[in-house]
Parts: sequence; C-alpha cells; structure tokens
Amino acid sequence: MAGKVFFSVTMSLDGFMAPEEVPYEDVFSPAKQDDPAVRRWMSKWSELQSWVFPLRWFRENLKLGEGGEEGVDNDFVRQTFERTGASVMGKRMFDAGELSWPEDAPFHTPVFVVTHTKREPWQRPGGTTFHFVNDGIESALAQARKAAGDRDVRIAGGAETIQQYLDAGLLDELSVTLSPVLFGSGIRLFDRVDAERVALKQIRSAASNRVTHLTYSVNKR
Amino acid sequence: MAGKVFFSVTMSLDGFMAPEEVPYEDVFSPAKQDDPAVRRWMSKWSELQSWVFPLRWFRENLKLGEGGEEGVDNDFVRQTFERTGASVMGKRMFDAGELSWPEDAPFHTPVFVVTHTKREPWQRPGGTTFHFVNDGIESALAQARKAAGDRDVRIAGGAETIQQYLDAGLLDELSVTLSPVLFGSGIRLFDRVDAERVALKQIRSAASNRVTHLTYSVNKR
Repeated sequence: MAGKVFFSVTMSLDGFMAPEEVPYEDVFSPAKQDDPAVRRWMSKWSELQSWVFPLRWFRENLKLGEGGEEGVDNDFVRQTFERTGASVMGKRMFDAGELSWPEDAPFHTPVFVVTHTKREPWQRPGGTTFHFVNDGIESALAQARKAAGDRDVRIAGGAETIQQYLDAGLLDELSVTLSPVLFGSGIRLFDRVDAERVALKQIRSAASNRVTHLTYSVNKR
Repeated sequence: MAGKVFFSVTMSLDGFMAPEEVPYEDVFSPAKQDDPAVRRWMSKWSELQSWVFPLRWFRENLKLGEGGEEGVDNDFVRQTFERTGASVMGKRMFDAGELSWPEDAPFHTPVFVVTHTKREPWQRPGGTTFHFVNDGIESALAQARKAAGDRDVRIAGGAETIQQYLDAGLLDELSVTLSPVLFGSGIRLFDRVDAERVALKQIRSAASNRVTHLTYSVNKR
C-alpha cells in the first residue's frame, strides 16, 4: 500500500520558512563568518530552529552525544524521520546541504534531487544515496514512491520545490511547526500558492511548551 | 491590578486575517450582493471564520437561538470575551461594524475608536459605548485601561491598528487561531512588523478538531 506524500517544515508565526537567501557558499565559508548578512542569516535560522537543538533524536542523528530531551517535540521529529522512505528536494537545497551535511548525510534513505544537472547517483555512508532527476517533479516523485515502498515520501524542500508539489496537487499532507518568532522578511512557505485549488483539514495538533506542530490533509477543491 | 493588553484574531495558515479589502458599504449593500468582489470577500471571510459559527457562545451573543457546540473552541471564544474589560479599534473596523453589528453591539463594554473624526460617545443597548479618540493610540489605550479596571484590554482590529500597537511595544500577549485555509492574498496580520524588536514565547496551545489557538507572550528584545 502506497504511503503519503508530505512536507514538514518549521515556520515563523508570520509565515517564513527561511531567512532571505544569502549565497550558501558564504554561510559555510570561514572567511565570511563576520559578514553581517551571513551572521543575520545564521541568527534568524538558529532562532527558527532552536526548538530542535536540545532534542535527543537530533543529537543522536548528528552524533552530538548522549542525552537530549524527550517528549512531544522529540516524538514529532522521530516520527517524521521514521515514516519517511524517500525524500525529494530542489537543487539549491542540495547544493547548500552538500556543503553542510556530515559525510553520512542525515537522510539514510534514497533522496531524489530535481535538477537540470546531470550527475551520477552519489552514495553516502549511512544509507543516503542522492539521485539526480532531470525530467521534472512528477518523475522525481514516481521514483521516490518506488524507493519508499509502503513508507511515505517527504518533500524535503526548499520552499520553491514544496510550492511546485502543492500547486501540482501532488501532496496528501503537510505539517508546519509554528516557531515563536517573527521574521519580517525571508522565504515565505506559501508564496504564490493558488489558494483556490487547495482545501486543508486539520488532522493533528501537538504542542510542547515551545512550539506547536500542526498537520493538515491536503485535497483539491 | 492592571490587566493585559492583547489581540486575538483568526489567521489563515498563510498569514492573512482578512480578504483583500472591498468597500465595506458594498459588503452590506443589497444592490452589491452579486458583485464578484463582494461574493469573493464573503466566501473567503466565511471560510476563515467557519469554526466560530457553530459555537454556543456565538449563537448566544448574536441571539441566534438555543444550542450550539461546546468544547475547546467555545471555551476559547467565551474566555476571550470574559477577560475583556474594554476594546480598542481602528476607524475602518468601526465604520464596517457600524453597518453590520446588531443594535446591541456585541462588545458589551466601552470601545475606544482611534480616529481623526470628532464624534460624541455613541451608547448602544447592551452595554457597548463607542468613544472616539482623536489623540492617538496611547491615549486610546490609556482610556481603555482605565475603563477595563483589572480586566484586559483587547485590541480588536483591524490589522493596521494591531500592527501599530505591536510596533509601539504596547502589547503583552497575542493569540492567533490558525484556520485550515490558504488565502493567497488579503490583509496580512504581521505585515510590516519590525521583527527584530519583538520576542515571542508560546504560553498556550489549545486544539479542537477544526482549529488550533496559539497564545504568545510579547516582549521587547
């Protein structure tokens, strides 16, 4: 039985899933660490994601050591990981991740990158293999579904890739973690959404003392 | 002991608290009911607020008759009403409401309208009196605090008035009810917010099977 196609991202209360873009090479460049734009990006991103850092699952997955918090937030990240049989992502997210992920990239499943770049599959230690799909989002999704078997397919990001899948009516479910932060500017999760074609129904709502995780089923109107 | 200054609004998942403005006289004009812009406004507004309509408190407050649902959503609207000793609103919200509220306007407290228009206090049956404040948001708030006594002051709306109080650092608390709807366009709740000056902390999260009510304490950074 096929799994669901979903995304799960953290969102500021005013609707942003990431700060305004800075060149990702700068974010990971030692020479650029004092660049005000880089520092602002890191500061905003860290605040948005701050709920993740203390969690046990996060510490384990990035091999930061023993311990870490358990509870609603930890259950949520763990379940999101465990339900995912394959991921799909856009090229920019891959390019930034290529610089930042550890060698054993944190997916531990096949990952399908939607891109025009031709590249052979890139296998990493720990079970992640990146596949580069040149013939569009539906092809990437079909390959991801096959790889995922009866588990779910996660559209990992970025915002533009998520919006493409949403607009194409290819999502079954979406989760947003509402982080207690206002961004003012940045990358809007639901930018350019064709709202008249999408119907949502809240199917889950789980809160810790920091954040709230909202899950919606997605249907066409 | 002084109460809190707060707002509580329903927000689409993509951050809108109302559809794009149409002239409010059109919304309440029988001649304009077939106007596509008016129909679209009513359709979007009704969908955003649909969680309220079945509630017992709503039916009682608008004298729609016996019955209505109880539970998390009903508790939330009832508590929001009961905590409020006085409200503050902008002129456009007042102008629209003047056409749409029943004779015994649904506030049942003093309401302070921030406006340049000079007008004597307008007392309605049922305990609502509208006061027209010409010397700005701080004056309106001071008068509202005095009227509210130890109860809270609600900044009722619209979005622009809420944003003024948020930017001035005059809010203690904010609640957003996340409605399962995407708008695509409209009046953004957090438009033009100066995010760097506002710090939020989630203090309450309550979910029904329809919507989730998130409450944050508001502090200056």
